[in-house]
Amino acid sequence: MYTKKLIHEKMFRDPIHNYIKIEYPLILDLINSKEMQRLRRIRQLGTTSFTFHGAEHSRFTHSLGVYEIARRICEIFNQNYSQKMNPTNGWDSSETLLTLTAALLHDVGHGAYSHTFEKIFDTNHEQITCKIITSPQTEIFQILSKISATFPEQVAQVIQKNYPNPQVTQIISSQIDADRMDYLLRDAYYTGTKYGTFDLSRILRTIHPFKNGIAFKESGMHAVEDYIVSRYQMYWQVYFHPTIRAMEIGLKNLLKLAHDLYPHDSKYFKKTSPALIPFFEDTFQLKDYLDLDDGVLNTYFIEWEKGKHSTLSELAGRFLNRHPLKSVSYTKDSKTLMNELKKCIADAGFDPLYYTEMNSSYDLPYDFYRPETQEIRTQIEILFANGKMKELSSLSPLVAALAGNPQKDSRFYFPKEMLNGNQKFSEILAKFAT
Amino acid sequence: MYTKKLIHEKMFRDPIHNYIKIEYPLILDLINSKEMQRLRRIRQLGTTSFTFHGAEHSRFTHSLGVYEIARRICEIFNQNYSQKMNPTNGWDSSETLLTLTAALLHDVGHGAYSHTFEKIFDTNHEQITCKIITSPQTEIFQILSKISATFPEQVAQVIQKNYPNPQVTQIISSQIDADRMDYLLRDAYYTGTKYGTFDLSRILRTIHPFKNGIAFKESGMHAVEDYIVSRYQMYWQVYFHPTIRAMEIGLKNLLKLAHDLYPHDSKYFKKTSPALIPFFEDTFQLKDYLDLDDGVLNTYFIEWEKGKHSTLSELAGRFLNRHPLKSVSYTKDSKTLMNELKKCIADAGFDPLYYTEMNSSYDLPYDFYRPETQEIRTQIEILFANGKMKELSSLSPLVAALAGNPQKDSRFYFPKEMLNGNQKFSEILAKFAT
Amino acid sequence: MYTKKLIHEKMFRDPIHNYIKIEYPLILDLINSKEMQRLRRIRQLGTTSFTFHGAEHSRFTHSLGVYEIARRICEIFNQNYSQKMNPTNGWDSSETLLTLTAALLHDVGHGAYSHTFEKIFDTNHEQITCKIITSPQTEIFQILSKISATFPEQVAQVIQKNYPNPQVTQIISSQIDADRMDYLLRDAYYTGTKYGTFDLSRILRTIHPFKNGIAFKESGMHAVEDYIVSRYQMYWQVYFHPTIRAMEIGLKNLLKLAHDLYPHDSKYFKKTSPALIPFFEDTFQLKDYLDLDDGVLNTYFIEWEKGKHSTLSELAGRFLNRHPLKSVSYTKDSKTLMNELKKCIADAGFDPLYYTEMNSSYDLPYDFYRPETQEIRTQIEILFANGKMKELSSLSPLVAALAGNPQKDSRFYFPKEMLNGNQKFSEILAKFAT
Amino acid sequence: MYTKKLIHEKMFRDPIHNYIKIEYPLILDLINSKEMQRLRRIRQLGTTSFTFHGAEHSRFTHSLGVYEIARRICEIFNQNYSQKMNPTNGWDSSETLLTLTAALLHDVGHGAYSHTFEKIFDTNHEQITCKIITSPQTEIFQILSKISATFPEQVAQVIQKNYPNPQVTQIISSQIDADRMDYLLRDAYYTGTKYGTFDLSRILRTIHPFKNGIAFKESGMHAVEDYIVSRYQMYWQVYFHPTIRAMEIGLKNLLKLAHDLYPHDSKYFKKTSPALIPFFEDTFQLKDYLDLDDGVLNTYFIEWEKGKHSTLSELAGRFLNRHPLKSVSYTKDSKTLMNELKKCIADAGFDPLYYTEMNSSYDLPYDFYRPETQEIRTQIEILFANGKMKELSSLSPLVAALAGNPQKDSRFYFPKEMLNGNQKFSEILAKFAT
Repeated sequence: MYTKKLIHEKMFRDPIHNYIKIEYPLILDLINSKEMQRLRRIRQLGTTSFTFHGAEHSRFTHSLGVYEIARRICEIFNQNYSQKMNPTNGWDSSETLLTLTAALLHDVGHGAYSHTFEKIFDTNHEQITCKIITSPQTEIFQILSKISATFPEQVAQVIQKNYPNPQVTQIISSQIDADRMDYLLRDAYYTGTKYGTFDLSRILRTIHPFKNGIAFKESGMHAVEDYIVSRYQMYWQVYFHPTIRAMEIGLKNLLKLAHDLYPHDSKYFKKTSPALIPFFEDTFQLKDYLDLDDGVLNTYFIEWEKGKHSTLSELAGRFLNRHPLKSVSYTKDSKTLMNELKKCIADAGFDPLYYTEMNSSYDLPYDFYRPETQEIRTQIEILFANGKMKELSSLSPLVAALAGNPQKDSRFYFPKEMLNGNQKFSEILAKFAT
Repeated sequence: MYTKKLIHEKMFRDPIHNYIKIEYPLILDLINSKEMQRLRRIRQLGTTSFTFHGAEHSRFTHSLGVYEIARRICEIFNQNYSQKMNPTNGWDSSETLLTLTAALLHDVGHGAYSHTFEKIFDTNHEQITCKIITSPQTEIFQILSKISATFPEQVAQVIQKNYPNPQVTQIISSQIDADRMDYLLRDAYYTGTKYGTFDLSRILRTIHPFKNGIAFKESGMHAVEDYIVSRYQMYWQVYFHPTIRAMEIGLKNLLKLAHDLYPHDSKYFKKTSPALIPFFEDTFQLKDYLDLDDGVLNTYFIEWEKGKHSTLSELAGRFLNRHPLKSVSYTKDSKTLMNELKKCIADAGFDPLYYTEMNSSYDLPYDFYRPETQEIRTQIEILFANGKMKELSSLSPLVAALAGNPQKDSRFYFPKEMLNGNQKFSEILAKFAT
Repeated sequence: MYTKKLIHEKMFRDPIHNYIKIEYPLILDLINSKEMQRLRRIRQLGTTSFTFHGAEHSRFTHSLGVYEIARRICEIFNQNYSQKMNPTNGWDSSETLLTLTAALLHDVGHGAYSHTFEKIFDTNHEQITCKIITSPQTEIFQILSKISATFPEQVAQVIQKNYPNPQVTQIISSQIDADRMDYLLRDAYYTGTKYGTFDLSRILRTIHPFKNGIAFKESGMHAVEDYIVSRYQMYWQVYFHPTIRAMEIGLKNLLKLAHDLYPHDSKYFKKTSPALIPFFEDTFQLKDYLDLDDGVLNTYFIEWEKGKHSTLSELAGRFLNRHPLKSVSYTKDSKTLMNELKKCIADAGFDPLYYTEMNSSYDLPYDFYRPETQEIRTQIEILFANGKMKELSSLSPLVAALAGNPQKDSRFYFPKEMLNGNQKFSEILAKFAT
Repeated sequence: MYTKKLIHEKMFRDPIHNYIKIEYPLILDLINSKEMQRLRRIRQLGTTSFTFHGAEHSRFTHSLGVYEIARRICEIFNQNYSQKMNPTNGWDSSETLLTLTAALLHDVGHGAYSHTFEKIFDTNHEQITCKIITSPQTEIFQILSKISATFPEQVAQVIQKNYPNPQVTQIISSQIDADRMDYLLRDAYYTGTKYGTFDLSRILRTIHPFKNGIAFKESGMHAVEDYIVSRYQMYWQVYFHPTIRAMEIGLKNLLKLAHDLYPHDSKYFKKTSPALIPFFEDTFQLKDYLDLDDGVLNTYFIEWEKGKHSTLSELAGRFLNRHPLKSVSYTKDSKTLMNELKKCIADAGFDPLYYTEMNSSYDLPYDFYRPETQEIRTQIEILFANGKMKELSSLSPLVAALAGNPQKDSRFYFPKEMLNGNQKFSEILAKFAT
């Protein structure tokens, strides 16, 4: 029986969780699948390591971490809160394997430099995750099908948040899910910042299922509050970092230029970057997508840098050798000024289309349930000894300060060279500060 | 003046040393050079992350770390032990920039999966390091030459250990140098093991120059002892790990097969792996070497996996998708048995040339000075309050137990498939245990 | 010359700061003084270790920590921001020794279970600190006088915040001073909670003197924000903990009862608790105060527990053997209910005067400058590259949420025995929840 | 039923183990007993905090830690290795509560400054531990008796190592027991040294019962080896520290002098140190012993310092205000020199009986089973996959270097004043170095 536990469980050493514990042959086989192993070649944080050099960890390690947090939650639920003990609010133990699987696979559709790549080639990593899970040609589908014919579809449902059991979906995606908890801790560890840390062990001690999802006992309130604050801190310290965004923009502009050049010199690209052709031509299949990883793109960039297309070569070199664009904060009122800047930049010989960008980083660290909004969020519930629940921001002044208060940073990016003695540019730039 | 300090020093956040502090424009420019940035695309520990998944850090981060430890040593020497204060045993402050530069660049010649690659293509990362430093076509040479015409050569001398000042060379390479101290701490952090940690701050507090090199004050003896023990522990826990070596062997066999096939189908390889051609043909130049990185090789392996050469495809897939060989420990007496095993393996359809290996891991955690040996080592000296020095192993029973006592592990590697019901194979294998 | 540096600086191993570095003979002599050594016998957190058992650290270790943070600040100021470089906003290096001394001695007037003791015997640890510093009979005064006749008085001025140089006073006491930074980190470490940690190294990297005090560079804004959040978290997780307060109340009631009994049986107290007599009689001198420590009081409690006064014995036993009162949260509207509770308690044989208390914990994690308030606070200033400064809460939504928003928790304490089957008590208690 | 588990388990926050988990009412009641609470007033490391100021933790926190490690071992044994699964080598689950109890209580007989006190007053903390457990007048006995009439005796047997089940006794005392594992980690944490740390989680993952005790699976060999090395390191870095021993000697000489003076002025001591009288007169009962703690002794020392006996006052002041003796290493050959030193010291007015000591620190970090020795040790066994076991030092060159190799440091202690210009003394002292 494939759902049985392994006789000898496997332990993988992990810097964040100490050990990742593998208890089921299904999970071990999924980890060993081609599609999961591919995540070793895709960095979790894209261009972040150009700024925080330590953050070179892959999506593979994060996926193991999400699995491990989900495993610990299920273990607690099975031991303390099974439906056998509490039919109304308890946890259905038969959902365990599904939950673990969804946790492990939730990011399997990520591709090379995903977030940037998607903008240029109109791919979508969430859709591809579900495709990988439900397409007969993948190893993952073959493995999942050993559980049952409907299992792949169920896993996809959980990831798409339309699985009927809200406890399962909230472990995988909600405002305090296994995904976010792992990436905050992991990104903090690898960047070497101290902001993303929070007390995971206490959160896990107080997590509690109820009919409509998961809640946290009162004694965990401050640990959950600290987790929200950590999210906010990591956004400002790491995820919004101006130089990280500068490298992303450099990458995006490079891919955009290649895309634009392709119709004019397809032969060149077929030779230097064969695996990208289906994307240039918008005919890509799942297998094409799975052939890409960060290293493949970098390999093409090395070719382009040495190649004949001068701007392409120049942009590829800027990316490979870390020459980030510079930036200035702007507000709504700075639009005219930016057009003036762009003119200067064009006059200096840089095509603004490939050498500038207006870029906004944006995040909402937390929000309570607002039925009227576009993206409705499952609010975080704190459970009291008397059985009542209260929404988190009603209890914490810190969370209240962040709830529904989007954190945003808008910057205009331009070539560093503009700062070297271009007097007109400097004059316009100086006006931004006022 | 290019040797002046930066007006605003730069700080890079580092998980091991908290901050990497850049004080000189020279160092900043070197870090930003093409040849250094390339190290971001080469993992410090090659195939180790297939076993310790967290250990995905690059040679770039390690190089920064070695620089930082060297910087702290120089800072201490300049503050407390300059030649002005102590003409006989003191530190010549004018050596600082040379020391920092050599520390930063000591590994710049590492290439894609260096240790494995070297065995097949007869490259040598140490020679290439010196070539990068002294060849006019590199950015690094151009930057170094701004200091003086002879500076590149001096840096190379330090790295080759024939620079006249032993204090400088010992900071860069000795049995307790900035290189080893950084990699032990860094590898322990990224693998998530706890064995590599030792008390760097105490070692740095007690480090002390003398006429013939560097020594450590008596109060640091136990910290130095702990560092040696950590080395020993890391060898057995990480560096000798059987599965890490299995993946290395898989990689080596893959490259060996490609090398062997090349004369028979050069067209295929020119198409699928263009940057390797100069290595197949043994005509490579420095620039060819610098075009390679882990991602480029992986990109070629992806092509090979999809390609027409069935064994090549099979070995490429085993590497990319992590199918390590299995292994058994052997002794000198097991030679005959191994030949029997190889015969079984060949009978099962696996060419022993590409599917097996006899592999010995070997390290000497420490040794004192033995003028009669081939590789003479600078022994670690402990300095007493009365000015006398004693060699470390004469003071520590732990170090004495390791000194001149090579740690070694010999294993025979074979395909995992041999363990699935091949009775004859199993019978021979069982004899190894006795 | 007594202001010269030590030839061999001393290093004390410290779990929080790694090393405490002693550079001046003055500081070493002060640490070795009788009055400072006495702080080893007084716990930093009074009764906290009854709840967080790890928190048994003394005021001595905290004093060393405050000194070390101040030392690092002065080191940075002397190196980077001395008045020689910047006459207007720079740091006057000749203030260093005064600052270090004030940091080390700022808590030297703390006594046995200070906060509780003060309420009963009307002592004041801040006044006593200044007395110790300025009274000719103390070792500390004798040591300080070696610097100059006016030095003791200057140190006292800094501690009383009326020293003219605001940079010096703000390092010692402000909303982000060496005192608070050390105790947050230290209390978090010893309790084993993770809430009090923040990035001290980054705060120190961005600290900057200006004419009217100290500020923090923009790059440190989030680290300072995180420090404020840590304060808030430590209040709720540790300092306001209901059981910690229960033990404090038990101690206070015990001392109150002894105080009340003394006039009726002074002979008993003269025999069992001689060192307390000057406090019972309100005739205490500085030397009497310095004779007390936690151990002396506990020794008396052991005697009282074995003694003839039954309620005194009972309360002493409750304290020594950790029998905390229980509590319930109350609001302004619960006054009547509390009187009913007290009646029940009296009916059950417990004198409400010694077995109950209404207790409010209160703290303001941060506030900006409000000239109209009673306790005017020096607000935290963030310094921008253009030289302008902004107040912290105007930049951080988290700090804004806490600024001027006192954190408060009010509880009514009563004997645990009341929960064992006293129906009437339970009924009244149940009304508090509504 | 008193052996049932608590409905709501209690969690105590602990800096070393994160949480101490209390599952049984028996354990909670024992923790809350008068005799256990008393351990809060006795420091784990006696005079160590005079040198490592952070190490102010009590025997109470250590006792909780030993309990927690034992609890985790039992949990693993009950889950994976119960006798139901493996009748020959398995763990008898009914021993769990006994094991936890013995772990918690194993140090309950420690008294004020135990190790020093015992030498003067001929007490024995191990015997007293058993007395506390088996004497009807203690709260602990009363609580234990609720389990069964024979339970107190069983607990005492485990602690005295004559309980028949070797698995139980080895968890509590062997060369790798819960006691040692906790104190190494805890002492390292509180001193702030890094030497005592080892990988407890891995050791616990590989611990395995067998018929004659406990063993460790092969995969834990290096973790166990690291634990032995940590012991060795902690001895040299902390436990043997010359200044720690100096303060112990100062304390011992102080108590010795009081003991010697008592017959001549018993009235004085009855007034200033009443609780010591039964010890001066050698008539002490268990209750007398339990009345003492570090604070009580310190309180008496404060009295003595102010008192009329000048040498007693002087020695009390030296201890309270931290004036350690100085020391020099000696060998067997230095005996004559030491007599010369003593003569100088006597000539300078210090009675050698109370102002000097020859002191040897000694420890054997590990030894294998040697039936011929006086103190036979249970060797550490490593269990291989084939079921065979090997003794640890046969596998590890590091442990082999330490096995049966006692670590020893011999020093002669004398008053610091002797170093101030006593020429004759200095001349003799100089001969020790040769």
